[in-house]
Amino acid sequence: MFQKNIYIERRNALRKFFKKGIIIIPGNSESPMSYDDNCYPFVQDSTFLYFFGLNDPNFIGVLDIDNNIDYIFGKDYSIDDIIWMGPQESIANQALKVGIENFKDIDTLNSFLLNKNNILFTEQYRAENILTLSKLLKINPLEFNKFISEDLKKAIIKLRNTKSSLEIEEIEKAVNVTRDMHLEAMKTIKPGMKEYELTAALEYICTKNNCLPSFHTICTINGETLHNHSQNNILKDGDLLLLDCGARLENGYCGDMTTVFPVSGKFSPVQKQFYNILIKMFNKAEEIIKPNITYKSVHLEVCRVLLEEFKKINLVKGSIENMLEAGVYGLFLPHGLGHMLGLDVHDMENFGEDYVGYDHTSSRSNLLGLKSLRLARILEPGFVFTVEPGIYFIPELIKKYKSENKFIEYVNYDEVEKYIGQVGIRYEGDFVITESGNRRLGKTMPKTVEEIENILEKRN
Amino acid sequence: MFQKNIYIERRNALRKFFKKGIIIIPGNSESPMSYDDNCYPFVQDSTFLYFFGLNDPNFIGVLDIDNNIDYIFGKDYSIDDIIWMGPQESIANQALKVGIENFKDIDTLNSFLLNKNNILFTEQYRAENILTLSKLLKINPLEFNKFISEDLKKAIIKLRNTKSSLEIEEIEKAVNVTRDMHLEAMKTIKPGMKEYELTAALEYICTKNNCLPSFHTICTINGETLHNHSQNNILKDGDLLLLDCGARLENGYCGDMTTVFPVSGKFSPVQKQFYNILIKMFNKAEEIIKPNITYKSVHLEVCRVLLEEFKKINLVKGSIENMLEAGVYGLFLPHGLGHMLGLDVHDMENFGEDYVGYDHTSSRSNLLGLKSLRLARILEPGFVFTVEPGIYFIPELIKKYKSENKFIEYVNYDEVEKYIGQVGIRYEGDFVITESGNRRLGKTMPKTVEEIENILEKRN
Repeated sequence: MFQKNIYIERRNALRKFFKKGIIIIPGNSESPMSYDDNCYPFVQDSTFLYFFGLNDPNFIGVLDIDNNIDYIFGKDYSIDDIIWMGPQESIANQALKVGIENFKDIDTLNSFLLNKNNILFTEQYRAENILTLSKLLKINPLEFNKFISEDLKKAIIKLRNTKSSLEIEEIEKAVNVTRDMHLEAMKTIKPGMKEYELTAALEYICTKNNCLPSFHTICTINGETLHNHSQNNILKDGDLLLLDCGARLENGYCGDMTTVFPVSGKFSPVQKQFYNILIKMFNKAEEIIKPNITYKSVHLEVCRVLLEEFKKINLVKGSIENMLEAGVYGLFLPHGLGHMLGLDVHDMENFGEDYVGYDHTSSRSNLLGLKSLRLARILEPGFVFTVEPGIYFIPELIKKYKSENKFIEYVNYDEVEKYIGQVGIRYEGDFVITESGNRRLGKTMPKTVEEIENILEKRN
Repeated sequence: MFQKNIYIERRNALRKFFKKGIIIIPGNSESPMSYDDNCYPFVQDSTFLYFFGLNDPNFIGVLDIDNNIDYIFGKDYSIDDIIWMGPQESIANQALKVGIENFKDIDTLNSFLLNKNNILFTEQYRAENILTLSKLLKINPLEFNKFISEDLKKAIIKLRNTKSSLEIEEIEKAVNVTRDMHLEAMKTIKPGMKEYELTAALEYICTKNNCLPSFHTICTINGETLHNHSQNNILKDGDLLLLDCGARLENGYCGDMTTVFPVSGKFSPVQKQFYNILIKMFNKAEEIIKPNITYKSVHLEVCRVLLEEFKKINLVKGSIENMLEAGVYGLFLPHGLGHMLGLDVHDMENFGEDYVGYDHTSSRSNLLGLKSLRLARILEPGFVFTVEPGIYFIPELIKKYKSENKFIEYVNYDEVEKYIGQVGIRYEGDFVITESGNRRLGKTMPKTVEEIENILEKRN
């Protein structure tokens, strides 16, 4: 939790977007796993955390614009609670620490809202919140999204997209735990392990730092399978492991990094060849990222490197400009170069990627290599986001495109097919835009073949 | 997953309870953590798992009693899915493995249900399922529980309360992983660690066995605080750690065990005194549990041991029978002796404890020591449940009762107050009712002071 002035300033900044009305920002309730009292680890809603800071379930934050008063509605502890939970600081007291003098019993919210107009709220990703707000506002839960405020959503995104130095400090802590998870995996990996065993070992580093995984860890020897579910494969010499994971601090800030490393400890010549291209792509992004250019242009420059390098080894042919125009790179890199990072690992994705990552300079393209680009907008100082180029030879995608004669003038499918199922790699780091350029967050991470092989050599 | 006949038999057994109608058993969808695509680990609904076996999100199982046909409604993989997920066994094929020949696209469920009468379903603990079923059945989500079938709930409980030998085998596997978690904690604990660090270490044993924690691990040096949230305390010499945790296998079956052990490796005299009483209570339960007696009577016999031993050391006085009648034991053991265990750690608690754990022999009491008794009914062969006596000196509870002069004729409050905040212990094992008695599940667990101290002595 930050000092209370931070939260007061954030709420005042949000208030300035609106002349009148009532803003409702619900926190999350517990998420039942298998019955009401058996819940997943509690994760607070990121917007509630941002404006109200309290990290317990069943709160609703309210900004009364008309009367310039902020409220938290919830339930304070009863004597019975204290008997079973031990002494607790009252929630009314906790609310004071985030600058809220009006902590009210949630049962009074119904009458508080009676006869109020201009009630503003956003869409909800938790069905529990849809039910709670629908009941409160007397709307049909099945038509909830008809009633949401686009303006509120845009105002929240405007404020949250730019991170303060305090926030960047917290994100950097999460990045460093994420780093430790990767280093642990590199030190632990050995042939014969199952993917889920490696995941268990690296997530232990996360939890022993009092963090949660910021998203479902991807730990796979089939990196070309982008949406991977199972982790039952046995790691073998010759396999390259792709690890994409992150830590979420107790206060909500997230890290997100990807590395690839060989189970045997040594990259094969083919693995090395493509890995070196991948790192050239990453380095290109790091070299050019700065304020006032679009992230889409960075994405395309990175794709240019991919095409240039692929042309050298005869995988593609023809004009690089034409290939960029046609989106040929999408066959090998079908996802975007990165996404915003903050209190969510895809920051504010609950509001829709297009609102967070796009501006007047471009709208979402339908092209294979651009349609999954989450971040495209002009970069501003304080933006925090990932850079995550990848190279994939996805069997079904290549087969489909070849059979449809797609990109036939650019792609040497016979050459490409040699690597099918052999290559699926990604390297990801977390960056902040500074006044003049960019800075990679966190302590130094191994990146080159040599750096990674050096770490693997030191395994027990 | 079991062989398909198991699922066919289970569905046929359920069908026999009903003459007509359509039974709807929804599986779970993903549970969003912070936005739609960032989800908690998937946990399938236990009733869906029991009757339909498939362990993926977004299925709805249907038993058409009138026409004697079973269905699973869901979405099979598209070509696009295969591109991103790699080759997958079709869901239609997976459904065959659980004996379902009618796998249908979920978009057709709406028209399938058109003009059908007697549609039976139970209450839902996941708000997503309330919204999905409400839309499908055109009912108001805010009044969902008005439409549920008590008969369906009772029929499901009747079937699931008795475990088959195959199920007991699976539960025993979960119990053995749970055992390994406890043994790891005993080998790992040392002064200076934080509670959450110890939790991380023992949950690593869970996840590296491809299990999830079956519930939020309780790992605390304040065992007398029954509803403990935080795990930020530092473990010190002299503290007694209470660990209550369990593993949930990938197929859903759960373990649940509690141990207490000293951070220093040695119980203090006071700790030993009460721990020995605790184990006497546990042994009493183990000695008398058998078919055709009520679990409530076992609970009371265990409470009798507590009162007898407390009388010996002058904590209580007067007639044991009168104290049992008055519920004096509840001041030191305010929770129940145990609960059903199976595909949920509190098996079927989503349907309500009273339906699962009570029968005609008793209804829920309001007495402090009985109102939290989850399992009270006559025990039958195949029932699987926990035995978990505890002894607690809860500061606020004792202060409250003393100030109200409650039990003043039985309790020597001056003596009791000596142990306030010093004692909060529980020991828990998992049992099955056999034809003639009971069997504790899992490999041997340390139980006596000597056995536990022996393990702690071998720490690094």
